[in-house]
Amino acid sequence: MVTGSVTDDLLIALGESARAAYARLQLAGEEAKNAALLAAAEQIEARADQILAANAVEVAAAKAAGVAAGMTDGLLDRLLLTPTRVQAMADGVRSVAALPDPVGRVLAQWPRPNRLTIRRVSIPIGVIAMIYEARPNVTADAAALCLKSGNAVVLRPGRECFETARVIADCFATALQQVGLPPAAVTMVPTADRALVTQLVQMNGLIDLVIPRGGIALQQMIVDQARVPVLQHLAGLCHVYVHAGADLAMARAVVLNAKLRRVGVCGAAETLLVDQAVAASHLVPILQDLAAAGCEIRGDKTVQALFPAASLATEQDWQTEYLAPIIAVRVVTDLAQAVAHINHYGSHHTDSIITDDPTTAAAFLAQVDSAMVLHNASTQFADGGEFGFGAEIGIATGRLHARGPVGLEQLTTYKYHLLGNGQCRPV
Amino acid sequence: MVTGSVTDDLLIALGESARAAYARLQLAGEEAKNAALLAAAEQIEARADQILAANAVEVAAAKAAGVAAGMTDGLLDRLLLTPTRVQAMADGVRSVAALPDPVGRVLAQWPRPNRLTIRRVSIPIGVIAMIYEARPNVTADAAALCLKSGNAVVLRPGRECFETARVIADCFATALQQVGLPPAAVTMVPTADRALVTQLVQMNGLIDLVIPRGGIALQQMIVDQARVPVLQHLAGLCHVYVHAGADLAMARAVVLNAKLRRVGVCGAAETLLVDQAVAASHLVPILQDLAAAGCEIRGDKTVQALFPAASLATEQDWQTEYLAPIIAVRVVTDLAQAVAHINHYGSHHTDSIITDDPTTAAAFLAQVDSAMVLHNASTQFADGGEFGFGAEIGIATGRLHARGPVGLEQLTTYKYHLLGNGQCRPV
Repeated sequence: MVTGSVTDDLLIALGESARAAYARLQLAGEEAKNAALLAAAEQIEARADQILAANAVEVAAAKAAGVAAGMTDGLLDRLLLTPTRVQAMADGVRSVAALPDPVGRVLAQWPRPNRLTIRRVSIPIGVIAMIYEARPNVTADAAALCLKSGNAVVLRPGRECFETARVIADCFATALQQVGLPPAAVTMVPTADRALVTQLVQMNGLIDLVIPRGGIALQQMIVDQARVPVLQHLAGLCHVYVHAGADLAMARAVVLNAKLRRVGVCGAAETLLVDQAVAASHLVPILQDLAAAGCEIRGDKTVQALFPAASLATEQDWQTEYLAPIIAVRVVTDLAQAVAHINHYGSHHTDSIITDDPTTAAAFLAQVDSAMVLHNASTQFADGGEFGFGAEIGIATGRLHARGPVGLEQLTTYKYHLLGNGQCRPV
Repeated sequence: MVTGSVTDDLLIALGESARAAYARLQLAGEEAKNAALLAAAEQIEARADQILAANAVEVAAAKAAGVAAGMTDGLLDRLLLTPTRVQAMADGVRSVAALPDPVGRVLAQWPRPNRLTIRRVSIPIGVIAMIYEARPNVTADAAALCLKSGNAVVLRPGRECFETARVIADCFATALQQVGLPPAAVTMVPTADRALVTQLVQMNGLIDLVIPRGGIALQQMIVDQARVPVLQHLAGLCHVYVHAGADLAMARAVVLNAKLRRVGVCGAAETLLVDQAVAASHLVPILQDLAAAGCEIRGDKTVQALFPAASLATEQDWQTEYLAPIIAVRVVTDLAQAVAHINHYGSHHTDSIITDDPTTAAAFLAQVDSAMVLHNASTQFADGGEFGFGAEIGIATGRLHARGPVGLEQLTTYKYHLLGNGQCRPV
């Protein structure tokens, strides 16, 4: 049953092909899916020159468009492929093939008094629409993870990398055909037209899940427009809270790592909260470390009194995901104020407490309403690889279905098997 | 962070109160939640006269409005409360109190090579908007299940039962206050105004999940309008497939039960598929049983040839959830045609195969893309009570988060605890 306001027949036909491919994929065993992945890796290697040529054209176009068109150095770097990066893509696809099959696991099983057996079994989600920006390598990541988990995927890359993505997607289609699986299991929208995105995310009945991966503007647009479920990946406004019971050396190391290891990732800390009781002893060395490493400090008045180099933080600072070497710092009275600050200003993504007191740590873990809460560890562990997931397609910031890193397991759902021997339900 | 197109300040204030109540509920232990439930049951008993008086007014109004206004006998029966039904409501709330706490369970835990421990823990979803029709008792069911699972709930009953629901909801608010929990944990929209529903389901950031419970028109309206996740409960177009390897006595008993035990439930069978190979032997006795029990038979030409009392089924019949003593019957060539029919016409809800052949059964369970697939059992087992869930708030027909019966466990989500001793992520 297809509902929604779709008007583009081409996109409907594409969705129907993907749906049929998903049905056939469900019948394919682990071996066939892995064979397709290995063949796709070989295709990527064999067609590396073609991928690089398409990419060179798009990088040149992006450079010509310039910063005025949003082509920053960061974007250009994400857009650029090199022989090493193409090889890494192929290796990534092989490593996904080597992961355990997430489908067909018995998640739970129990008998009923009437001797029915009920079994919850993991299955693919169905057809996933993956919407991303100017990162051609996401094409291979998404295709590999969806294929391994038995999902069909409709890819919508950013227009800056559209042609490069087309070649990479075609490597998968060819590989699928080679092993006798439907090529439509990995497919791409025909053009980068924005109107197609709107239609895609409203194809209730054909698309089961939308995964947007990109900036917050893209995410918000899709959440607003979608009529099918979205695994959103919104802001990562993460906090480190240095409690009165924190070990100073640990606090220094963890804050420095949480803020500065990589400033552009969603698990990077943006705000530091320090208990009043240890402001005198802990705050200055922590801020000295940060400043020495090139981090700008914005603090409240108490922070400024202790560390005059800090500028004054405004209300806006507590709400900002800098993704830059800047940190907002506030002195708090106690755990309750820290938790209130985090739950009010944070994005419910990843927050850490540094303390040697297990009772306070337990209270923090329970009360901070975030997908990932840490005790005595850096927020930069918010990452599927660090969770041992092998590969991830993003980090989910919604509350339902999947939270945190989205790996193969998170790309599955379940069905129930009810096994009887003639049971009828009493009236 | 609140986003969306909400304009009604009153509803925002209500959502914020519910959100604050949820935060306080998260700190409440199992004991406090159970005390609130027991107190609510007592309130319902103590205020039974008031509940019945409000209900009498609304039943009279519905009768006066008459069938022309949609007030069918079925609707009037669902609207009507009696002393026995009020007592059943109170008993239901007590039985929810007796169920195990679904929150705080360690769902998974694993160590990492760097000695971080990662733990996945069940937590409430947050604030749930429950939108239902003219069934006042749903008020108590929903409030009890949400409260037990630590969620705050915003109730929006149908206008036909609005005042009765208000008294019942107030029993919970009073009970919450009595035990020192925030009364806003169970709250109601101020009026039955439809525009408030639209606003409610778009309050991204305040409402975490919408659960519509009612007819397909309500469900579809909410899916179309919602900007927050919806646990939809759409059609139950369920099939029984009598395979060539079916035991005749079992097939007769199961089909009769699946179709006629209760015809108005979503797990009732609507279409019967019978293998060509056993059409001669099995079809007639099965249809005789159904006809003798008052069921209308609509069949394809093969069915009509064997059972002339059947009228001719049209394309529309394969697409219809009758919720009535009518069955559509088709003779199929084999498993593949049965599966194709079910996946094409069905609603991915509940489908059953009757066969003594385990290989065919396994193929059916794998290939039929439904939330519940049964082997040798009646589709009428599609029910939370029959799953052993103790109580259910509905049956989810979406593919994500929860599928099938929605009990306490399905009203939870999870967070990750990462437990370290100073771990920093290497660069």
